[in-house]
Amino acid sequence: MNSSTKKLLDRFFQADQRALAKLMTLIDNRHEDSLEVMSAIHDQEKGAQRIGITGPPGSGKSTLVDKLITKYRQLEKKVGIIAIDPSSPFSGGAVLGDRIRMQEHSADNAVFIRSLGSRGAHGGLSRATRDIVSLLDAFGFDVILIETVGVGQTELDIMSIASTTLVVLVPESGDTIQTMKAGLMEIADIFIVNKSDREGADQIFAELRSLSEMYSTGWEVPVIKTVALKNEGTTELMEIIAAHEKHRGKQEKLSDEHILLSDCLEILLSELSDDLTEHLSPKGKYKKIYQNLISQKCNPYSAVIEMKKKIKI
Amino acid sequence: MNSSTKKLLDRFFQADQRALAKLMTLIDNRHEDSLEVMSAIHDQEKGAQRIGITGPPGSGKSTLVDKLITKYRQLEKKVGIIAIDPSSPFSGGAVLGDRIRMQEHSADNAVFIRSLGSRGAHGGLSRATRDIVSLLDAFGFDVILIETVGVGQTELDIMSIASTTLVVLVPESGDTIQTMKAGLMEIADIFIVNKSDREGADQIFAELRSLSEMYSTGWEVPVIKTVALKNEGTTELMEIIAAHEKHRGKQEKLSDEHILLSDCLEILLSELSDDLTEHLSPKGKYKKIYQNLISQKCNPYSAVIEMKKKIKI
Repeated sequence: MNSSTKKLLDRFFQADQRALAKLMTLIDNRHEDSLEVMSAIHDQEKGAQRIGITGPPGSGKSTLVDKLITKYRQLEKKVGIIAIDPSSPFSGGAVLGDRIRMQEHSADNAVFIRSLGSRGAHGGLSRATRDIVSLLDAFGFDVILIETVGVGQTELDIMSIASTTLVVLVPESGDTIQTMKAGLMEIADIFIVNKSDREGADQIFAELRSLSEMYSTGWEVPVIKTVALKNEGTTELMEIIAAHEKHRGKQEKLSDEHILLSDCLEILLSELSDDLTEHLSPKGKYKKIYQNLISQKCNPYSAVIEMKKKIKI
Repeated sequence: MNSSTKKLLDRFFQADQRALAKLMTLIDNRHEDSLEVMSAIHDQEKGAQRIGITGPPGSGKSTLVDKLITKYRQLEKKVGIIAIDPSSPFSGGAVLGDRIRMQEHSADNAVFIRSLGSRGAHGGLSRATRDIVSLLDAFGFDVILIETVGVGQTELDIMSIASTTLVVLVPESGDTIQTMKAGLMEIADIFIVNKSDREGADQIFAELRSLSEMYSTGWEVPVIKTVALKNEGTTELMEIIAAHEKHRGKQEKLSDEHILLSDCLEILLSELSDDLTEHLSPKGKYKKIYQNLISQKCNPYSAVIEMKKKIKI
């Protein structure tokens, strides 16, 4: 680790918020000290509560997040928020708008908001999220809210970082529930029917209840109604989040080994992916293979055979 | 390549369907000859038409696929079908039912159906799909239909293999369209409103049209109505697929380099992922690191630092 990184890390551990932001950028840019920094950070994690919030655009996630921030601040908890939009530029506008709404908290030093856009493949986004969660945790945030749009594979990967995941739906989400059944149940610890003062709320509520009854294992996924805009149902939500945290505490150790190994492999593969992308280029270490591939003198499979001969793992 | 694999490959190139099935299993099990087999196969690809079909469960994809098979058979094309369900056991039943419906084609030697379930991370499923597509292509199938359930990240990865992708929706899909806007536009070459004799079809049609008008780049994604069960709209669909194939032919060269490189990296990383999973285990090459990780003497980041010291790429 070079001396300026070391100084940055010292300032971070003295609770300097500017050092926090700078370290995030350093990690983001895959600085050569990244792994060492993250290793030092990881050892100082205090075990913050990690709450994932996901659901379709327009389901009111950000309003809900906003209310949760206020509630946790009332309990004197420091709150970190990571807002992620893994999809393409399309929804950028909406997310930006949401962020602006959250600015009432931006003067509050105990609230820290970080946005993340899309990344390359091979765990890019989920690794970036994991790193930022670690940084916020080690810095001393008590609660970390991770908000994503949508409920696809990327969100599923990201949500594995959260200890409690809220899936936010609205009365219009019937078709989404049918489409996403398996994914929803895999991801959700708590179902929320937001905007539940709208028509159709009871039906969605019943559908989610029966989904939960049929497919829950261990923890029976509760379904609650909220109207985030009017702050209705948010106190109940806080109680249920706490109940899930308690329930989870008992079982956590069981899956520890699996999580450690998959974290480790994810980090390693994303490192190797970066290096290999660099090697397999016009001026890279594997430029010969690159040229043969591009000129179709070899195919991707024989290129892999060639590269595997050079790689020692 | 060992001699029995070589014989299998010879029989494959003599159009022996049992050799095709056996090679699929060999590749599936990551036999040590896999890469060499795939390299030989890849060089014999003839450029089959690759059509992806995706959409929520219950949208009638399989019925549509069934009708397409019949149409292509009437044109004397040989048709390979890959049916993929990346989600959990939940929808297994439905997919199985769909497969049974397709069995009217199973006596037809010029139709070959292969199902694929979920795989591990790191491109497992999309690599498996890619390999099977190559096998079917090299074997001499003219048209390859790739059917998946859902429209998440996994499907997006898989659909990058298809040259023309159909997204099948139904009149009830309004919320899905809102949720998945970006993903849908990224994936779709043709939108289909199936079951269009149901109420709400016109509205969905209009929504998709305006989505297409707003966000299409180059090829303006057409929207067509079908009632697959009654074979309505399928002739028009065949024409539009052919039109897209023609349109695409002109541009293909542009993205060739990018596709070759990302294929190559995907294959290599999935190979390395397999090896590393084996190494990082109680009896593996990195068992020391494994033990330190499990006993929390080191964290995932420092474990990666240690492994990177041993890895030469």
